[in-house]
Amino acid sequence: MDFKIKFNQYNKDDSMMYGNMLLTGNGYFGIRGTFEEYTKEMYGAINMSGIYDRSEPDAWRESVNAPNCIYVKLEADKETYSLPDTLPSNHYHELDFKYGIFTRKTVWKTNKGTITLESERFASMHDKHLVCVKYTVFSDYDCKIKLTSGINTDIWNINGNHFAKVEKTSDNGYINCICTTIEKNIELSLQEYDAINTNCKKSIINDENGIFNVFEINAKKDEKYVLEKITKISSSVDKKASVTDLKKTNYENLKKLHISEWDKIWDISFVEIKGDKEAEKALNFCIYELNAIAPRHTDAGSIPARGLSAQVYKGAIFWDTEMFMFDYFLHTDVSVARTLINYRIKTMGGAMIKAKEYGYEGAFYAWESQEDGIDACSEFNIIDPVSGRPLKTHFRDKQIHISADIIYALKRYVEYTKDYSILDEGGKEMVIQCALFYRSAIVKRLNSNFYELHNCIGPDEYHECINNNAYTNKMAKMVFDYAYELTKNDDTEHALMFKDCADKLYIPSPRKEDDVIEQFDGYFKMENCSVEDLKKREYTKGEYWGGAYGIATQTQILKQADVATMLCMFKDEYSNKILKANFDYYEKRTQHGSSLSACMYSLLGCYLGNAESAYPLFMTSALADLKEERSQWSGKVFIGGTHPASAGGAWMCAILGFAGLGIKDGKITLNPCLPESFEEMNFKIVYNGKKHNIKVTRTKCFVD
Amino acid sequence: MDFKIKFNQYNKDDSMMYGNMLLTGNGYFGIRGTFEEYTKEMYGAINMSGIYDRSEPDAWRESVNAPNCIYVKLEADKETYSLPDTLPSNHYHELDFKYGIFTRKTVWKTNKGTITLESERFASMHDKHLVCVKYTVFSDYDCKIKLTSGINTDIWNINGNHFAKVEKTSDNGYINCICTTIEKNIELSLQEYDAINTNCKKSIINDENGIFNVFEINAKKDEKYVLEKITKISSSVDKKASVTDLKKTNYENLKKLHISEWDKIWDISFVEIKGDKEAEKALNFCIYELNAIAPRHTDAGSIPARGLSAQVYKGAIFWDTEMFMFDYFLHTDVSVARTLINYRIKTMGGAMIKAKEYGYEGAFYAWESQEDGIDACSEFNIIDPVSGRPLKTHFRDKQIHISADIIYALKRYVEYTKDYSILDEGGKEMVIQCALFYRSAIVKRLNSNFYELHNCIGPDEYHECINNNAYTNKMAKMVFDYAYELTKNDDTEHALMFKDCADKLYIPSPRKEDDVIEQFDGYFKMENCSVEDLKKREYTKGEYWGGAYGIATQTQILKQADVATMLCMFKDEYSNKILKANFDYYEKRTQHGSSLSACMYSLLGCYLGNAESAYPLFMTSALADLKEERSQWSGKVFIGGTHPASAGGAWMCAILGFAGLGIKDGKITLNPCLPESFEEMNFKIVYNGKKHNIKVTRTKCFVD
Repeated sequence: MDFKIKFNQYNKDDSMMYGNMLLTGNGYFGIRGTFEEYTKEMYGAINMSGIYDRSEPDAWRESVNAPNCIYVKLEADKETYSLPDTLPSNHYHELDFKYGIFTRKTVWKTNKGTITLESERFASMHDKHLVCVKYTVFSDYDCKIKLTSGINTDIWNINGNHFAKVEKTSDNGYINCICTTIEKNIELSLQEYDAINTNCKKSIINDENGIFNVFEINAKKDEKYVLEKITKISSSVDKKASVTDLKKTNYENLKKLHISEWDKIWDISFVEIKGDKEAEKALNFCIYELNAIAPRHTDAGSIPARGLSAQVYKGAIFWDTEMFMFDYFLHTDVSVARTLINYRIKTMGGAMIKAKEYGYEGAFYAWESQEDGIDACSEFNIIDPVSGRPLKTHFRDKQIHISADIIYALKRYVEYTKDYSILDEGGKEMVIQCALFYRSAIVKRLNSNFYELHNCIGPDEYHECINNNAYTNKMAKMVFDYAYELTKNDDTEHALMFKDCADKLYIPSPRKEDDVIEQFDGYFKMENCSVEDLKKREYTKGEYWGGAYGIATQTQILKQADVATMLCMFKDEYSNKILKANFDYYEKRTQHGSSLSACMYSLLGCYLGNAESAYPLFMTSALADLKEERSQWSGKVFIGGTHPASAGGAWMCAILGFAGLGIKDGKITLNPCLPESFEEMNFKIVYNGKKHNIKVTRTKCFVD
Repeated sequence: MDFKIKFNQYNKDDSMMYGNMLLTGNGYFGIRGTFEEYTKEMYGAINMSGIYDRSEPDAWRESVNAPNCIYVKLEADKETYSLPDTLPSNHYHELDFKYGIFTRKTVWKTNKGTITLESERFASMHDKHLVCVKYTVFSDYDCKIKLTSGINTDIWNINGNHFAKVEKTSDNGYINCICTTIEKNIELSLQEYDAINTNCKKSIINDENGIFNVFEINAKKDEKYVLEKITKISSSVDKKASVTDLKKTNYENLKKLHISEWDKIWDISFVEIKGDKEAEKALNFCIYELNAIAPRHTDAGSIPARGLSAQVYKGAIFWDTEMFMFDYFLHTDVSVARTLINYRIKTMGGAMIKAKEYGYEGAFYAWESQEDGIDACSEFNIIDPVSGRPLKTHFRDKQIHISADIIYALKRYVEYTKDYSILDEGGKEMVIQCALFYRSAIVKRLNSNFYELHNCIGPDEYHECINNNAYTNKMAKMVFDYAYELTKNDDTEHALMFKDCADKLYIPSPRKEDDVIEQFDGYFKMENCSVEDLKKREYTKGEYWGGAYGIATQTQILKQADVATMLCMFKDEYSNKILKANFDYYEKRTQHGSSLSACMYSLLGCYLGNAESAYPLFMTSALADLKEERSQWSGKVFIGGTHPASAGGAWMCAILGFAGLGIKDGKITLNPCLPESFEEMNFKIVYNGKKHNIKVTRTKCFVD
């Protein structure tokens, strides 16, 4: 398979797109796919995992970007050759997503000839602290080349500078930079060692833009000057330290170690799709994306909704991780799956604080979770483009399904891995606290025998303050059932409490006439119109359709899969007829205004045996971050970045959907539903501690 | 006392103001205080009580305006003399609110001399079907005067023409007009008889503007020509018919009968306030206003929120009637009080339909109630002036206190009158249905012993979707208590149910540190700012401060008295210290953005013995419809008209507050709290079927 994404031209306006699409990363940080000479105006960033801070008391807390240590500026005969200001005569760049290696070649015409810059870089998978850049420059005539390479501290931040103090030093050939964050005094340290394959004049600049090595080379015609630029990033909150001595290693050696780590990942992760090269490439790009941001550097960390591509959505963790990304890791690298759950166990305190804030008991997990589980979600987070008014949303206070989403992942983890230790190490307590949360959220009407959940938002965020969302109620019941299972032998008081809730919580049934499940109380009474018709009612392009007065709020139009998501999670409890009825009813009423939507409908399409409906939705998900999309702003709010939930969802469609992978009675089962273009699928999963090769053809399935 | 409101000048721009302030009426209809020659552009209207219809399928249902039977056009020597087009040389008009007689005198200069028009009119209190106009014209030179007098059918309607058919005929000196409404085929019939004190040429015009008698007079210098113009209005939904034969009566005779009816009203109603002429006049104007719209023509009718002054708020009945106007009638004319309650008993079917619509049991009374109790309130009824977007409010679905407000009035009626027949004639059933409604609205959390009411709006409409509004919960408990009282002897099943609710419904207590009662769950956590500061945050003048995103919604700023209203209704259950603490806390946080606000704070001020705080708020209420206010439009929505709840509230302040009238153990009690300017109050009430004279001085009280 061709693992490369290639561009043969330079276009300044594509910089934001490249930044997202061509991201490299190792879970400890992500490096946006930008060029070495870029300054903050071009949205380069090294986005750190799990480190959050606040620039000003009123600013949103967001993930921290490290100083820019891929920075190199090229001058020749005192002229600067730099994108985007100096347009190249030739330009090529690519991402090899097999190994997360970003490569470029840029040629500038000068009045004497040409200057060529070639570079290559990766975020080391071997030592997660290392950024490795190889930077080669040559000219077809003799000239004086000057390279300014170092740590640029004047970086892009969505919500202002995060560093109270920046300490820059140089010693023994290293340049160092220690930045201290404003709010929590976290120290982020960079140590860079630059090696160049020529004798040249060397000096150091330490100014307000950072600290830099300056190499002044008397360049000979056609001679290649190679700068190896290795930087170690570490922080005062690191769980594991780097052991690499920068002086005792070199780029090629680090690259070998790096590649060998990616080979291990691909050995278990690669999915072959015979007959559909486009799908194969898109899906494996999704797998790349998930691995480039998987928190393998820690035993308790998670993945933000926009990966490590920027400070979008404050770098926060959403339900996306558990419901859309978790499955891939569960089936291929259970240690990452456990790390993701451990993060939620570790941040349970924040969830308990949030529960209390809203008058609940137990653990109400954050809609936007940062390092301590405190909810980073603000209340007025959408600006009406017509009036300029900030609009209050209820994502924070009413989207109560998040706690259940986490328990759903934990339960699957335990069932799949039989690693019961997680329950003793906080997992069981998390289940109990989430169950207590839902119990405290339940209301009962005096004239009804049911328990109800009122005033919620389900996955479809266009309808706020609704009662008895099918998804939320069903997920909450799952929590009660599981909590009962875990407590019945040693904690009768809780067990009885949870059983009572599980038994009485109202779960909407399919309606008799057409098997459709009502998304929430009163949904069927809302205006029945089409997405196209609704679009015509927009006051202005790109306005928010939800909130209190949005154009979708009084209609049956959904933002994203809601009942469909519920059916995917509990497919075995519903007949094929019901799955189909709900797919047919809801899909056409869905705007798919979220990257979490298409994959769930695709998966449901597979579950009900309709691969042809599922296929385009799968491709939408798989291609989410390969689309050439330039606009990533909603008014003044940056909403760009990558979509790892879509990537994870695409994997779910392919493996759980098309290949029909399942586990029954401790055995791997396959119930394939291949789209026409797929001749054969070959992939592996780890189950019961063993690697299994799986082949699915149009007529047969094999598991070894 | 001077009962006259006088104007010595004509100003076209004041027409809307005169129309409201100088209204005459008899409860069957209201005639706006406009001039005879006015056409619809000047907002004249004869607004019918209890008759509603819809112009177009999508238009708001609203009260029906009758064809304009006060219309007279004056021409002299072929020139038209007509306001506002022909400006007068002299103009005077007045309302004598002792008898509801509107008088004008207008003089025009012509090139030969002057033409003078004098007119007088009233809405007969003796025969509620009659509109009586006396129209006198004379000139100080000989000329040809032409009067066109009749029924103008081209009338002002806020939401379009209401008549599908207009049938105009003339016979035997009568002109007749029968209009049939579009939606419900209600027939509105007008019969007019014009008598003039001279022989002149008479003819009839029947055209698209209506049907008219034309009188062509050879006018002699200084001779007065008097047109008596009596019209009988009746409708196919009338409860009582008129027995007056228009030909056998005359203006002066009808005026005598009319005056004698008003004399009866004043005999019981007049409130003398020695020492404060301004307050005395304002208060007695309020009493006039209430009587001019009291539904004495029927045994089951009510008073719209804007009286009979226009189709504002669809001519609908709000909680204003029971909570603000009811008391005056209860103490002075119990038959009207009963009529108001009967209206609610009669419309219980509509309330039961509404309850069902929202998934409740029992009777959920309409926020905007029309003839059948179906809720006329629309969901999107405010236009954001910044964005032009219609904003959804929750007045209709969440302002659940209305059912309790009605029961509160019923309960006071029964306690005050000891007329238990009302209970057998639907009253008890209404209590049971309202109690069942509240019971079905109750939710109980599993981890609490209390019953709660969630997702409501209290009187303060700026805070929507709140839990446990103190006013709403307290009022609902009162319904349960009363329902228990009424059922305990013969309906144990219901009785136990209601007692359980009354016992367990959560009623917010004053907080320990300062005795302030929290308006709703979480109110104290909201931003604490001043009304003035908040005003500065307006995006545009006159924008709505409530709704989902209004500037008040996240603050402690109230639209109108909320906890204060609760304390007024249940003052005997709270200490003076609590009343004072809450007055002090909430009054300064209240925008008083409703005419229901000032009077409640004034009343509370009296109850806690602070007449000086109460007095300016009382005057605000008493003068509400005497203010010279010209702007009565909110964007394109007409929000003008009179404020009878403010009038009723002013009466409550004066009698229940300043005079401190109460009933204890079947006896009249007085606990006065006179403001400094009041030397003495003299008034009457009817109690136990007897008229009582009451005198309150600064040192003594007398009741006979």
